Amino acid sequence: MPESHFANTSRDAALRERAGRVIPGGLWGHLNAARLPEGYPQYYSRAEGCRLWDADGREVVDFMSSWGPIVLGHHHPAVEEAAQRQAALGDCMNGPAPVLVDLAERLVETIPHAAWCLLSKNGTDATTACVTIARAGTGRRKLLVARGSYHGAVPWCSPSMAGVTAEDRAHLLFYDYNDADSVRAAAEAARGDLAGILVTAFRHDMARTLDLPAPGFAQALRTICDDQGAALILDDVRAGFRLHLGGSWETLGVRPDLAAYSKAIANGHPLAAVTGREWLRRAATEVFTTGSFWCGAVPMAAALATIAELHRIDGPARMRAMGQRLRDGLAAGAERHGLAILQSGPPQMPLLQFERDVDFRLGEAFCAAALAAGAYFHPRHNMFLNCAHDAAAVDRGLAAAEEGFAAVARLSP
Amino acid sequence: MPESHFANTSRDAALRERAGRVIPGGLWGHLNAARLPEGYPQYYSRAEGCRLWDADGREVVDFMSSWGPIVLGHHHPAVEEAAQRQAALGDCMNGPAPVLVDLAERLVETIPHAAWCLLSKNGTDATTACVTIARAGTGRRKLLVARGSYHGAVPWCSPSMAGVTAEDRAHLLFYDYNDADSVRAAAEAARGDLAGILVTAFRHDMARTLDLPAPGFAQALRTICDDQGAALILDDVRAGFRLHLGGSWETLGVRPDLAAYSKAIANGHPLAAVTGREWLRRAATEVFTTGSFWCGAVPMAAALATIAELHRIDGPARMRAMGQRLRDGLAAGAERHGLAILQSGPPQMPLLQFERDVDFRLGEAFCAAALAAGAYFHPRHNMFLNCAHDAAAVDRGLAAAEEGFAAVARLSP
Repeated sequence: MPESHFANTSRDAALRERAGRVIPGGLWGHLNAARLPEGYPQYYSRAEGCRLWDADGREVVDFMSSWGPIVLGHHHPAVEEAAQRQAALGDCMNGPAPVLVDLAERLVETIPHAAWCLLSKNGTDATTACVTIARAGTGRRKLLVARGSYHGAVPWCSPSMAGVTAEDRAHLLFYDYNDADSVRAAAEAARGDLAGILVTAFRHDMARTLDLPAPGFAQALRTICDDQGAALILDDVRAGFRLHLGGSWETLGVRPDLAAYSKAIANGHPLAAVTGREWLRRAATEVFTTGSFWCGAVPMAAALATIAELHRIDGPARMRAMGQRLRDGLAAGAERHGLAILQSGPPQMPLLQFERDVDFRLGEAFCAAALAAGAYFHPRHNMFLNCAHDAAAVDRGLAAAEEGFAAVARLSP
Repeated sequence: MPESHFANTSRDAALRERAGRVIPGGLWGHLNAARLPEGYPQYYSRAEGCRLWDADGREVVDFMSSWGPIVLGHHHPAVEEAAQRQAALGDCMNGPAPVLVDLAERLVETIPHAAWCLLSKNGTDATTACVTIARAGTGRRKLLVARGSYHGAVPWCSPSMAGVTAEDRAHLLFYDYNDADSVRAAAEAARGDLAGILVTAFRHDMARTLDLPAPGFAQALRTICDDQGAALILDDVRAGFRLHLGGSWETLGVRPDLAAYSKAIANGHPLAAVTGREWLRRAATEVFTTGSFWCGAVPMAAALATIAELHRIDGPARMRAMGQRLRDGLAAGAERHGLAILQSGPPQMPLLQFERDVDFRLGEAFCAAALAAGAYFHPRHNMFLNCAHDAAAVDRGLAAAEEGFAAVARLSP
């Protein structure tokens, strides 16, 4: 148990104990620290730039960026100023504020495939709306999904089958990411009833090596959708606004019919978006998708400022450069210690694994030691650079990683 | 078209025109003003207490409270101070802030049936999690839902069938609200596979008279669930924290197994909650429910302050008293004009209808004239009092209603 590391005097342990009584499992979902390496905190008292302070006041340089949302760094002045300016006027009103129109226009300008957009709160809201719109727009039911891909946390796509019925997934067919033949076979099986193909920007399944789209894979999906009149749906919730501001497949020259965004869109303010092509506009009008806070103006103001700042500083390039600096430093560190590592994913969203570390024992030892030395890495899930990571922050992370590699070297034969 | 009322010079019309190009149908969901009476604005520039200013700067006293979320009034100082204090520390981090534990404990203390809680962002997140937890906890599939009840905007419950497949609703059985025999019949049809019964706090279906639970109805549902070992799920998203702080059925002496909250829980900050009994704790752990912003600390700080303030001032009683003042004044006004009206719902969430006004022509005329005189009423959906409505605000609303009644009187034979 991670608690044991801090004994009973730590504030984190006390909070976990109280939470254990009133929250099932201590915490819902992906931020539950129970499966993280020893010493990882559950509660945070403060955040600034790329630094976090846990409830016991210990500071780390953070490479998870809140699992994606923080793209410019915590408390980015331009974002917070825009958010506060809007908050002083109004947030949740009987209708939207004018900032909605500015943001919608900005998204449509920025994302080449987009003729229109819808806003919501969760990534799952956006992926679910995409699927519903694809079905409404085609009058068909079948959806192709990659085995193991994460698209959200509701019955049609949840990684847990608890409470899920067979009917929730009746119209899903599965393919293997980066295997165009498997997509063609699934599309053939669905012929006449194929509403769409759902795909993540790259293969970023938990606890496995990240794979970028293989040459021709994205184009094969585009061709299949065009042939069958189905919607190509890019789930850009995790990668959007980190790899390319126009959508993560812009560098591949493949444009989807629908895309789902969330996480980094407003630098931590709760917002999600669907963008779509003209042929799906009517379907997007017919589908009823709404929420009590979806016209909230503060996250929209934050998103507008976030996107402007990402453009101004070329955020994706900056995160790529700093991610490459991290990757190069990790490679050098591993080599110094004679350790065989595997680094995968785009530099902005990297994963570090140790070779032959099937149970993640080495990865966890690395992370635990690096955390104790002041850097927050993740052993199984892709990490996230943000624009507050400068060379000094990355180097501080690398210094902590040195302790991690030393710990792994002590475990290795 | 509402735009015509203001000619082409209005800012609202210009915003709608721009939005029409980049947002399907001009706006998604329930805040779309297209079906509101002539003159109703779509865009808002400012909010304070129970007052709103539209994009053209016109001020109204508002009786919709953002369709529910605003329960203390816009910019309530205690709520905003708590939110800003937390924002200065951190909002969306690698895990929650300590305020999560304070809020979870507060919810469990405040809501008698609750042994635990989960937080999320949308009412739909909460109702969907309730259904999934009920299925996981019982190992059964069937769900009883009242015909015409609104429980959210995703395929299993959306009021639109666009993009919805038959399988999305394969395990729903329907009953009529306030008809215990129809519930018994549906429960009998589901016997052996009944996971739960979903019910709203009162019957608040759009465009029909509101019905409070009939005597014995709530208890009948409780008995059926107890007999079959199914979960009674109270959808308190719309009414929660307005009628009673312990849950809207506390006054009936009937406690659910699961309840869904959102809207008023944090005075406009985006938050939702599920509360549940001990026997469903394990199921709530097994279900995977999460979102990128669900550990965001600012809405939690806002919720804690909102609930404390609602307790301190006995918010439900205050809203009830001001709702009764509004109701009495409307009754008197209608009588002065010789108009037959129907007022329904709890005083905190009232609906005004005109008798024999099946097409809402009189209701719309009333609303349009009242709006022009400075009060925002709704002709078809229940309205929402909030704690910023004092006697002066209600009386200002009644003065505007006088213009509404005069307009209806001119239309009546």
